[in-house]
Amino acid sequence: MPRVSQDHLDARRRQILDGARSCFARYGYEGATVRRLEEATGLSRGAIFHHFRDKESLFLALAEDDVLRMAEVVAAQGLVQVMRELLSSPAGTGDTLSPADWLGTRLEVSRRLRTDPEFRARWAERSEQLTVATRERLLRQREAGKLRDDVDVHVLTAFLELVLEGLVSHLAMGLPADDMDPVLDLVEETVRRHRRSG
Amino acid sequence: MPRVSQDHLDARRRQILDGARSCFARYGYEGATVRRLEEATGLSRGAIFHHFRDKESLFLALAEDDVLRMAEVVAAQGLVQVMRELLSSPAGTGDTLSPADWLGTRLEVSRRLRTDPEFRARWAERSEQLTVATRERLLRQREAGKLRDDVDVHVLTAFLELVLEGLVSHLAMGLPADDMDPVLDLVEETVRRHRRSG
Repeated sequence: MPRVSQDHLDARRRQILDGARSCFARYGYEGATVRRLEEATGLSRGAIFHHFRDKESLFLALAEDDVLRMAEVVAAQGLVQVMRELLSSPAGTGDTLSPADWLGTRLEVSRRLRTDPEFRARWAERSEQLTVATRERLLRQREAGKLRDDVDVHVLTAFLELVLEGLVSHLAMGLPADDMDPVLDLVEETVRRHRRSG
Repeated sequence: MPRVSQDHLDARRRQILDGARSCFARYGYEGATVRRLEEATGLSRGAIFHHFRDKESLFLALAEDDVLRMAEVVAAQGLVQVMRELLSSPAGTGDTLSPADWLGTRLEVSRRLRTDPEFRARWAERSEQLTVATRERLLRQREAGKLRDDVDVHVLTAFLELVLEGLVSHLAMGLPADDMDPVLDLVEETVRRHRRSG
Protein backbone atom coordinates (compact mmCIF):
# COMPACT_ATOMS: atom_id res chain seq x y z
CA MET A 1 0.00 0.00 0.00
CA PRO A 2 1.42 3.41 -0.93
CA ARG A 3 1.54 6.03 1.79
CA VAL A 4 -0.71 8.98 1.07
CA SER A 5 -0.15 12.49 2.31
CA GLN A 6 -2.69 14.48 4.32
CA ASP A 7 -3.01 16.92 1.40
CA HIS A 8 -3.91 14.07 -0.86
CA LEU A 9 -6.47 12.76 1.63
CA ASP A 10 -8.01 16.22 1.98
CA ALA A 11 -8.21 16.69 -1.78
CA ARG A 12 -9.79 13.29 -2.18
CA ARG A 13 -12.31 14.05 0.55
CA ARG A 14 -13.19 17.32 -1.19
CA GLN A 15 -13.57 15.51 -4.52
CA ILE A 16 -16.00 13.07 -2.92
CA LEU A 17 -18.01 15.80 -1.20
CA ASP A 18 -18.32 17.88 -4.37
CA GLY A 19 -19.41 14.94 -6.50
CA ALA A 20 -21.78 13.67 -3.82
CA ARG A 21 -23.36 17.11 -3.48
CA SER A 22 -24.38 17.19 -7.15
CA CYS A 23 -25.52 13.61 -6.92
CA PHE A 24 -27.74 14.14 -3.85
CA ALA A 25 -29.09 17.37 -5.36
CA ARG A 26 -30.00 15.61 -8.56
CA TYR A 27 -31.36 12.30 -7.32
CA GLY A 28 -32.30 12.95 -3.69
CA TYR A 29 -30.92 10.98 -0.79
CA GLU A 30 -32.57 7.66 -1.58
CA GLY A 31 -31.99 8.03 -5.31
CA ALA A 32 -28.28 8.67 -4.88
CA THR A 33 -27.24 5.05 -5.24
CA VAL A 34 -23.67 3.90 -4.69
CA ARG A 35 -23.32 3.45 -8.45
CA ARG A 36 -24.43 7.04 -9.05
CA LEU A 37 -22.09 8.28 -6.33
CA GLU A 38 -19.26 6.47 -8.09
CA GLU A 39 -20.15 8.16 -11.36
CA ALA A 40 -20.53 11.60 -9.79
CA THR A 41 -17.25 11.46 -7.88
CA GLY A 42 -15.24 9.52 -10.46
CA LEU A 43 -14.13 7.19 -7.68
CA SER A 44 -14.83 3.60 -6.72
CA ARG A 45 -17.10 2.68 -3.84
CA GLY A 46 -14.03 1.41 -2.02
CA ALA A 47 -12.39 4.84 -2.25
CA ILE A 48 -15.58 6.64 -1.25
CA PHE A 49 -16.26 4.52 1.80
CA HIS A 50 -12.65 4.64 2.83
CA HIS A 51 -13.34 8.29 3.63
CA PHE A 52 -16.91 8.07 4.86
CA ARG A 53 -18.37 5.23 6.88
CA ASP A 54 -21.60 5.08 4.91
CA LYS A 55 -23.95 7.14 2.76
CA GLU A 56 -25.53 8.72 5.83
CA SER A 57 -22.15 9.91 7.11
CA LEU A 58 -21.30 11.27 3.68
CA PHE A 59 -24.55 13.20 3.47
CA LEU A 60 -24.16 14.64 6.97
CA ALA A 61 -20.58 15.66 6.21
CA LEU A 62 -21.55 17.58 3.12
CA ALA A 63 -24.58 19.21 4.73
CA GLU A 64 -22.30 20.33 7.55
CA ASP A 65 -19.73 21.50 5.01
CA ASP A 66 -22.41 23.70 3.40
CA VAL A 67 -23.42 25.17 6.75
CA LEU A 68 -19.80 26.06 7.55
CA ARG A 69 -19.30 27.77 4.19
CA MET A 70 -22.53 29.71 4.63
CA ALA A 71 -21.53 30.68 8.16
CA GLU A 72 -18.32 32.18 6.73
CA VAL A 73 -20.29 34.34 4.31
CA VAL A 74 -22.67 35.33 7.09
CA ALA A 75 -19.80 36.33 9.38
CA ALA A 76 -18.27 38.53 6.69
CA GLN A 77 -21.35 39.90 4.96
CA GLY A 78 -24.53 38.90 6.77
CA LEU A 79 -27.38 36.55 6.06
CA VAL A 80 -29.12 38.87 3.61
CA GLN A 81 -25.98 38.71 1.47
CA VAL A 82 -26.24 34.91 1.47
CA MET A 83 -29.76 35.33 0.16
CA ARG A 84 -28.67 37.78 -2.53
CA GLU A 85 -26.01 35.34 -3.67
CA LEU A 86 -28.57 32.57 -3.80
CA LEU A 87 -30.57 34.75 -6.17
CA SER A 88 -27.76 36.02 -8.31
CA SER A 89 -25.26 33.24 -8.92
CA PRO A 90 -26.57 30.63 -11.30
CA ALA A 91 -23.70 28.23 -10.78
CA GLY A 92 -20.64 28.04 -8.59
CA THR A 93 -17.14 26.99 -9.41
CA GLY A 94 -14.28 25.98 -7.20
CA ASP A 95 -14.72 27.40 -3.73
CA THR A 96 -18.07 28.92 -4.57
CA LEU A 97 -21.00 26.73 -3.79
CA SER A 98 -23.50 26.39 -6.59
CA PRO A 99 -26.86 27.53 -5.23
CA ALA A 100 -28.52 24.70 -7.13
CA ASP A 101 -26.37 22.13 -5.38
CA TRP A 102 -26.70 23.85 -2.05
CA LEU A 103 -30.46 23.99 -2.46
CA GLY A 104 -30.59 20.32 -3.25
CA THR A 105 -28.70 19.43 -0.09
CA ARG A 106 -30.76 21.81 1.97
CA LEU A 107 -34.03 20.40 0.66
CA GLU A 108 -32.90 16.88 1.39
CA VAL A 109 -32.05 17.99 4.91
CA SER A 110 -35.53 19.51 5.22
CA ARG A 111 -37.23 16.38 3.99
CA ARG A 112 -35.25 14.09 6.27
CA LEU A 113 -35.84 16.35 9.26
CA ARG A 114 -39.52 15.89 8.63
CA THR A 115 -39.46 12.14 8.27
CA ASP A 116 -36.54 10.93 10.38
CA PRO A 117 -36.38 11.84 14.12
CA GLU A 118 -32.90 10.34 14.48
CA PHE A 119 -31.60 12.53 11.70
CA ARG A 120 -33.28 15.50 13.36
CA ALA A 121 -31.30 14.95 16.56
CA ARG A 122 -28.02 14.58 14.69
CA TRP A 123 -28.69 17.66 12.61
CA ALA A 124 -29.69 20.03 15.41
CA GLU A 125 -26.15 20.62 16.67
CA ARG A 126 -24.76 21.10 13.17
CA SER A 127 -27.33 23.66 12.04
CA GLU A 128 -26.73 25.68 15.21
CA GLN A 129 -23.50 27.01 13.68
CA LEU A 130 -25.38 29.10 11.15
CA THR A 131 -27.60 30.59 13.83
CA VAL A 132 -24.58 31.45 15.94
CA ALA A 133 -22.80 33.11 13.01
CA THR A 134 -25.92 35.12 12.18
CA ARG A 135 -26.46 36.23 15.76
CA GLU A 136 -22.82 37.24 16.25
CA ARG A 137 -22.86 39.23 13.04
CA LEU A 138 -26.01 41.05 14.20
CA LEU A 139 -24.45 41.78 17.59
CA ARG A 140 -21.45 43.35 15.86
CA GLN A 141 -23.80 45.38 13.67
CA ARG A 142 -25.64 46.56 16.75
CA GLU A 143 -22.41 47.64 18.40
CA ALA A 144 -21.60 49.59 15.24
CA GLY A 145 -24.96 51.34 15.52
CA LYS A 146 -26.27 49.85 12.28
CA LEU A 147 -28.96 47.65 13.76
CA ARG A 148 -32.32 48.66 15.14
CA ASP A 149 -32.20 48.48 18.92
CA ASP A 150 -35.90 48.10 19.74
CA VAL A 151 -36.04 44.40 18.85
CA ASP A 152 -34.07 41.60 20.52
CA VAL A 153 -31.19 40.17 18.48
CA HIS A 154 -32.61 36.66 18.91
CA VAL A 155 -35.83 37.81 17.26
CA LEU A 156 -33.95 39.45 14.38
CA THR A 157 -31.87 36.28 13.94
CA ALA A 158 -34.97 34.09 13.84
CA PHE A 159 -36.58 36.52 11.39
CA LEU A 160 -33.65 36.36 8.98
CA GLU A 161 -33.45 32.59 9.24
CA LEU A 162 -37.17 32.32 8.51
CA VAL A 163 -36.82 34.44 5.38
CA LEU A 164 -33.83 32.39 4.25
CA GLU A 165 -35.83 29.22 4.75
CA GLY A 166 -38.63 30.73 2.68
CA LEU A 167 -36.24 31.72 -0.07
CA VAL A 168 -34.70 28.26 -0.17
CA SER A 169 -38.12 26.74 -0.46
CA HIS A 170 -39.18 29.27 -3.10
CA LEU A 171 -36.14 28.62 -5.27
CA ALA A 172 -36.31 24.89 -4.76
CA MET A 173 -39.85 24.90 -6.07
CA GLY A 174 -38.66 26.57 -9.23
CA LEU A 175 -40.81 29.63 -8.64
CA PRO A 176 -39.77 32.87 -10.38
CA ALA A 177 -37.28 34.90 -8.36
CA ASP A 178 -36.60 37.84 -10.66
CA ASP A 179 -38.71 40.15 -8.50
CA MET A 180 -37.07 39.24 -5.21
CA ASP A 181 -34.51 42.04 -4.94
CA PRO A 182 -36.91 44.64 -3.53
CA VAL A 183 -38.20 42.00 -1.09
CA LEU A 184 -34.67 41.46 0.23
CA ASP A 185 -34.23 45.24 0.43
CA LEU A 186 -37.31 45.28 2.66
CA VAL A 187 -35.89 42.46 4.80
CA GLU A 188 -32.61 44.30 5.18
CA GLU A 189 -34.35 47.54 6.06
CA THR A 190 -36.41 45.71 8.68
CA VAL A 191 -33.36 44.74 10.74
CA ARG A 192 -31.49 48.01 10.23
CA ARG A 193 -31.65 51.03 12.44
CA HIS A 194 -34.81 52.94 11.66
CA ARG A 195 -34.34 56.16 9.87
CA ARG A 196 -37.02 58.71 10.47
CA SER A 197 -39.60 58.51 7.72
CA GLY A 198 -40.93 61.48 5.84
CA MET B 1 -78.10 1.41 -8.60
CA PRO B 2 -79.58 3.75 -5.97
CA ARG B 3 -79.78 7.39 -6.86
CA VAL B 4 -77.56 9.58 -4.74
CA SER B 5 -78.21 13.19 -3.91
CA GLN B 6 -75.77 16.03 -4.56
CA ASP B 7 -75.44 16.51 -0.81
CA HIS B 8 -74.43 12.93 -0.44
CA LEU B 9 -71.88 13.26 -3.24
CA ASP B 10 -70.43 16.39 -1.68
CA ALA B 11 -70.18 14.76 1.73
CA ARG B 12 -68.51 11.72 0.20
CA ARG B 13 -66.06 13.92 -1.67
CA ARG B 14 -65.23 15.76 1.56
CA GLN B 15 -64.75 12.44 3.37
CA ILE B 16 -62.29 11.32 0.71
CA LEU B 17 -60.37 14.61 0.74
CA ASP B 18 -60.05 14.65 4.52
CA GLY B 19 -58.87 11.06 4.71
CA ALA B 20 -56.51 11.50 1.81
CA ARG B 21 -55.02 14.62 3.36
CA SER B 22 -53.95 12.73 6.49
CA CYS B 23 -52.72 9.88 4.36
CA PHE B 24 -50.56 12.05 2.07
CA ALA B 25 -49.27 14.00 5.09
CA ARG B 26 -48.26 10.81 6.85
CA TYR B 27 -46.84 8.74 4.01
CA GLY B 28 -45.98 11.28 1.31
CA TYR B 29 -47.34 11.15 -2.21
CA GLU B 30 -45.59 7.98 -3.32
CA GLY B 31 -46.13 6.26 0.03
CA ALA B 32 -49.88 6.91 0.00
CA THR B 33 -50.81 3.64 -1.68
CA VAL B 34 -54.35 2.87 -2.76
CA ARG B 35 -54.64 0.46 0.16
CA ARG B 36 -53.60 3.18 2.60
CA LEU B 37 -56.02 5.64 0.98
CA GLU B 38 -58.79 3.08 1.49
CA GLU B 39 -57.89 2.76 5.17
CA ALA B 40 -57.61 6.52 5.70
CA THR B 41 -60.91 7.33 4.01
CA GLY B 42 -62.86 4.24 5.13
CA LEU B 43 -63.93 3.75 1.52
CA SER B 44 -63.17 1.26 -1.22
CA ARG B 45 -60.91 2.12 -4.14
CA GLY B 46 -63.99 1.93 -6.33
CA ALA B 47 -65.70 4.65 -4.31
CA ILE B 48 -62.57 6.81 -4.17
CA PHE B 49 -61.88 6.69 -7.89
CA HIS B 50 -65.52 7.26 -8.70
CA HIS B 51 -64.93 10.77 -7.38
CA PHE B 52 -61.36 11.33 -8.54
CA ARG B 53 -59.88 10.07 -11.77
CA ASP B 54 -56.61 8.97 -10.20
CA LYS B 55 -54.28 9.62 -7.27
CA GLU B 56 -52.78 12.65 -9.01
CA SER B 57 -56.21 14.25 -9.45
CA LEU B 58 -57.05 13.51 -5.83
CA PHE B 59 -53.84 15.12 -4.61
CA LEU B 60 -54.32 18.21 -6.78
CA ALA B 61 -57.92 18.55 -5.59
CA LEU B 62 -56.95 18.53 -1.95
CA ALA B 63 -54.00 20.86 -2.42
CA GLU B 64 -56.34 23.25 -4.21
CA ASP B 65 -58.91 22.80 -1.43
CA ASP B 66 -56.27 23.86 1.11
CA VAL B 67 -55.34 26.93 -0.91
CA LEU B 68 -58.99 28.01 -1.13
CA ARG B 69 -59.50 27.63 2.61
CA MET B 70 -56.33 29.59 3.30
CA ALA B 71 -57.40 32.28 0.85
CA GLU B 72 -60.62 32.69 2.85
CA VAL B 73 -58.70 33.27 6.07
CA VAL B 74 -56.37 35.67 4.25
CA ALA B 75 -59.30 37.66 2.86
CA ALA B 76 -60.86 38.02 6.30
CA GLN B 77 -57.81 38.33 8.51
CA GLY B 78 -54.62 38.54 6.49
CA LEU B 79 -51.70 36.26 5.82
CA VAL B 80 -49.99 36.94 9.15
CA GLN B 81 -53.10 35.57 10.84
CA VAL B 82 -52.75 32.38 8.79
CA MET B 83 -49.22 32.12 10.15
CA ARG B 84 -50.35 32.69 13.72
CA GLU B 85 -52.94 29.94 13.34
CA LEU B 86 -50.30 27.62 11.97
CA LEU B 87 -48.34 28.24 15.16
CA SER B 88 -51.18 28.08 17.65
CA SER B 89 -53.58 25.32 16.64
CA PRO B 90 -52.10 21.89 17.24
CA ALA B 91 -54.95 20.06 15.52
CA GLY B 92 -57.99 21.03 13.52
CA THR B 93 -61.49 19.64 13.66
CA GLY B 94 -64.33 19.92 11.19
CA ASP B 95 -63.93 23.02 9.07
CA THR B 96 -60.60 23.87 10.63
CA LEU B 97 -57.64 22.52 8.79
CA SER B 98 -55.13 20.76 10.98
CA PRO B 99 -51.81 22.55 10.47
CA ALA B 100 -50.07 19.17 10.57
CA ASP B 101 -52.21 17.90 7.69
CA TRP B 102 -51.95 21.17 5.81
CA LEU B 103 -48.18 21.18 6.24
CA GLY B 104 -47.94 17.67 4.93
CA THR B 105 -49.84 18.56 1.78
CA ARG B 106 -47.86 21.73 1.32
CA LEU B 107 -44.54 19.94 1.68
CA GLU B 108 -45.58 17.33 -0.83
CA VAL B 109 -46.51 20.15 -3.20
CA SER B 110 -43.08 21.69 -2.62
CA ARG B 111 -41.28 18.44 -3.25
CA ARG B 112 -43.21 17.69 -6.42
CA LEU B 113 -42.72 21.24 -7.70
CA ARG B 114 -39.02 20.60 -7.43
CA THR B 115 -39.00 17.25 -9.14
CA ASP B 116 -41.90 17.29 -11.59
CA PRO B 117 -42.12 20.07 -14.23
CA GLU B 118 -45.57 18.92 -15.38
CA PHE B 119 -46.90 19.21 -11.87
CA ARG B 120 -45.30 22.66 -11.65
CA ALA B 121 -47.30 23.86 -14.64
CA ARG B 122 -50.56 22.48 -13.29
CA TRP B 123 -49.93 23.93 -9.86
CA ALA B 124 -49.02 27.47 -10.95
CA GLU B 125 -52.59 28.56 -11.71
CA ARG B 126 -53.96 27.04 -8.51
CA SER B 127 -51.45 28.65 -6.17
CA GLU B 128 -52.15 32.02 -7.75
CA GLN B 129 -55.39 32.26 -5.75
CA LEU B 130 -53.53 32.70 -2.49
CA THR B 131 -51.37 35.46 -3.95
CA VAL B 132 -54.45 37.24 -5.26
CA ALA B 133 -56.25 37.01 -1.91
CA THR B 134 -53.17 38.34 -0.12
CA ARG B 135 -52.68 41.22 -2.52
CA GLU B 136 -56.35 42.23 -2.40
CA ARG B 137 -56.34 42.17 1.36
CA LEU B 138 -53.26 44.41 1.40
CA LEU B 139 -54.86 46.82 -1.07
CA ARG B 140 -57.90 47.14 1.20
CA GLN B 141 -55.57 47.73 4.17
CA ARG B 142 -53.79 50.43 2.24
CA GLU B 143 -57.06 52.14 1.40
CA ALA B 144 -57.90 52.02 5.10
CA GLY B 145 -54.60 53.75 5.85
CA LYS B 146 -53.22 50.79 7.78
CA LEU B 147 -50.49 49.81 5.35
CA ARG B 148 -47.16 51.47 4.76
CA ASP B 149 -47.30 53.37 1.50
CA ASP B 150 -43.61 53.60 0.62
CA VAL B 151 -43.36 50.02 -0.65
CA ASP B 152 -45.25 48.51 -3.56
CA VAL B 153 -48.07 46.13 -2.65
CA HIS B 154 -46.55 43.45 -4.90
CA VAL B 155 -43.36 43.60 -2.87
CA LEU B 156 -45.26 43.38 0.42
CA THR B 157 -47.25 40.42 -0.93
CA ALA B 158 -44.09 38.62 -2.01
CA PHE B 159 -42.51 39.37 1.37
CA LEU B 160 -45.43 37.85 3.30
CA GLU B 161 -45.52 34.81 1.04
CA LEU B 162 -41.79 34.31 1.53
CA VAL B 163 -42.18 34.39 5.31
CA LEU B 164 -45.11 31.97 5.12
CA GLU B 165 -43.03 29.63 3.02
CA GLY B 166 -40.25 29.85 5.59
CA LEU B 167 -42.64 29.13 8.43
CA VAL B 168 -44.10 26.13 6.64
CA SER B 169 -40.62 24.79 6.07
CA HIS B 170 -39.60 25.51 9.67
CA LEU B 171 -42.62 23.71 11.13
CA ALA B 172 -42.37 20.86 8.69
CA MET B 173 -38.81 20.25 9.81
CA GLY B 174 -40.02 19.90 13.38
CA LEU B 175 -37.95 22.86 14.54
CA PRO B 176 -39.05 24.62 17.75
CA ALA B 177 -41.61 27.35 17.12
CA ASP B 178 -42.37 28.56 20.64
CA ASP B 179 -40.35 31.74 20.10
CA MET B 180 -41.98 32.70 16.80
CA ASP B 181 -44.63 35.14 18.07
CA PRO B 182 -42.30 38.15 18.32
CA VAL B 183 -40.97 37.29 14.85
CA LEU B 184 -44.48 37.45 13.42
CA ASP B 185 -45.03 40.72 15.30
CA LEU B 186 -41.98 42.04 13.47
CA VAL B 187 -43.32 40.78 10.13
CA GLU B 188 -46.67 42.44 10.78
CA GLU B 189 -45.01 45.70 11.80
CA THR B 190 -42.94 45.63 8.61
CA VAL B 191 -45.97 45.85 6.35
CA ARG B 192 -47.94 48.26 8.52
CA ARG B 193 -47.88 52.01 8.32
CA HIS B 194 -44.78 53.29 10.06
CA ARG B 195 -45.33 54.99 13.32
CA ARG B 196 -42.74 57.53 14.24
CA SER B 197 -40.15 55.94 16.49
CA GLY B 198 -38.71 57.56 19.56
